[in-house]
Amino acid sequence: MTHHTREWILAERPHGEPDADCFAMRERDLSAPESGELLVRVLYLSVDPYMRGRMRDSESYAEPWALGDPLRGGVVGEVLAAADDRYAAGDLVTGTGTWADVTRLDADDAAPVDPTVADPPAYLGALGMPGRTAYFGLLEVGEPKPGDTVVVSGAAGAVGSVVGQIARLNGCRVVGFAGTDEKTEWLTETLGFDAAINYAAVDEYRAALAEAAPDGVDVYFDNVGGPISDAVLSRLNRDARVAVCGQIAHYNEEETPTGPRTLPRLIAPRARVQGLLVTDYAPRFDEAADRLAEWVAAGDVVHRETVVDGLSNAPDAFLGLFSGDNVGKQVVSVSSS
Amino acid sequence: MTHHTREWILAERPHGEPDADCFAMRERDLSAPESGELLVRVLYLSVDPYMRGRMRDSESYAEPWALGDPLRGGVVGEVLAAADDRYAAGDLVTGTGTWADVTRLDADDAAPVDPTVADPPAYLGALGMPGRTAYFGLLEVGEPKPGDTVVVSGAAGAVGSVVGQIARLNGCRVVGFAGTDEKTEWLTETLGFDAAINYAAVDEYRAALAEAAPDGVDVYFDNVGGPISDAVLSRLNRDARVAVCGQIAHYNEEETPTGPRTLPRLIAPRARVQGLLVTDYAPRFDEAADRLAEWVAAGDVVHRETVVDGLSNAPDAFLGLFSGDNVGKQVVSVSSS
Repeated sequence: MTHHTREWILAERPHGEPDADCFAMRERDLSAPESGELLVRVLYLSVDPYMRGRMRDSESYAEPWALGDPLRGGVVGEVLAAADDRYAAGDLVTGTGTWADVTRLDADDAAPVDPTVADPPAYLGALGMPGRTAYFGLLEVGEPKPGDTVVVSGAAGAVGSVVGQIARLNGCRVVGFAGTDEKTEWLTETLGFDAAINYAAVDEYRAALAEAAPDGVDVYFDNVGGPISDAVLSRLNRDARVAVCGQIAHYNEEETPTGPRTLPRLIAPRARVQGLLVTDYAPRFDEAADRLAEWVAAGDVVHRETVVDGLSNAPDAFLGLFSGDNVGKQVVSVSSS
Repeated sequence: MTHHTREWILAERPHGEPDADCFAMRERDLSAPESGELLVRVLYLSVDPYMRGRMRDSESYAEPWALGDPLRGGVVGEVLAAADDRYAAGDLVTGTGTWADVTRLDADDAAPVDPTVADPPAYLGALGMPGRTAYFGLLEVGEPKPGDTVVVSGAAGAVGSVVGQIARLNGCRVVGFAGTDEKTEWLTETLGFDAAINYAAVDEYRAALAEAAPDGVDVYFDNVGGPISDAVLSRLNRDARVAVCGQIAHYNEEETPTGPRTLPRLIAPRARVQGLLVTDYAPRFDEAADRLAEWVAAGDVVHRETVVDGLSNAPDAFLGLFSGDNVGKQVVSVSSS
């Protein structure tokens, strides 16, 4: 039995900011799953900033997408057919699939979705790759200690919102940068951040940070880069740790971005700056999944998803990441058209 | 009994590049040492790039020198009078004193100089603070492993020349950046560097580095900053370590230096960049002193000092650091006028 599907492919590589021309929809039939595969009806698909790197024709930490190939990422869906003993038709699963109505998943790479723990889209956010990124990036690279001041950029995003809450659970003072009043209010009122700075509403990031983090910065979890990071790096405390998770401010730049030099700022505080990729922690993903599920179940980690309806709107949902349209995790609901 | 001395004081704070107006010589009498002090006839004094930071009226990792205060740094000298049981008149010692003919040393901060191990000036270089900086910076921050490619900037300087040799002793491929053919020849012919790049003679640092370090960079020990560091940071291997020891290219800049952004370059290689100050390793200084003395005695670490004669020439010797006049450690011989 074959399944008909629509799927998005990479039609053009972007120059600077991607636009709709980069994406094209095609239709095709998928044959039955081969051994170790699942055929899945996609309910939600994930759009993530790191995907911008895969659109480039150059080596990055993620292999570049080939022109004409389907776009791939995290999905949540319902198993239509399983060629693996661990799954059966009707199961809710998450894994890495295509931007499509129906996709194949590698059963080894898939995991069950338990809707009694959280609504399925959360498995693409706080209970998925972004949550794991927050968990390992903060705890293993940031090494927060009780009483530390932890600053997060992109704090209302899928990763940053979880980072701040884990920092809070570790007894830290948490300060977030985000781009709207709605976001900063969510951070302080709902997520328990100690302070949040709407960078779009302040002229001097450094002065705003001095007020929000008067004792300096012990840990900086960076999702953004650019002038926000410049401000934070100018206020590092002795032995500060900087986890470089993302640099969304620079993903659409064609030229090498320039700015104040970082290295001269690291000597006096003996600061440590480290790039991180969540995939390096794959052997410990179960640990993160368990802890995050406990925290979510207990209400200690609040999650939120911004849902765009319809597979046809997936490119727009992706492009919206670069203008900060999302609060929490941006997902696309594929069940509607 | 009093001792008459000349001594250099900070006369003006520099704007940009320091010049002779920043320094003034005064004369005064020193009284007998108080308890725990040594009065020492200075034989050699050390001039070091970090001293530029102390000339600024702003917080740095080293406390700023006050206007009118004597300039301080490492010295080697002969004890004239000791108010401490561990030393007696005639002993050769090293410690932190003033740019002077005669200076006081804190006996707790002093250490014996053994001229059978190395000529006394080496105690300001490979067997002194620069050697300890190389030892802890490379081994503790750089964490070299056999087979790693280690790149050193300022490689012919007091710190860099020892870094490269310790890396070689650890089974690494060692590449140095230096600014003259004399220096690069010294690195490869005498110190055992695998390759050395005369940055003054190449147009494209990155291409030169690609040739000298074809397998990429595992450890970068940075004494310089600027375009050399930009080139090295663009070729970091997976899990690379960058020890930020000095940034002499930027010490005389009045404005915040700008350049290609560092943070976006760290994610793909998961690189770690860390500022270092040797004083943090004070509890382990004896370990470093012992190892360095063994290596020097065995000829495994070759050291060289560039000696400027005469206390009156100390400012020139210091200023020469910024134009790379020194090969190995720059010292001033004070015994002559």
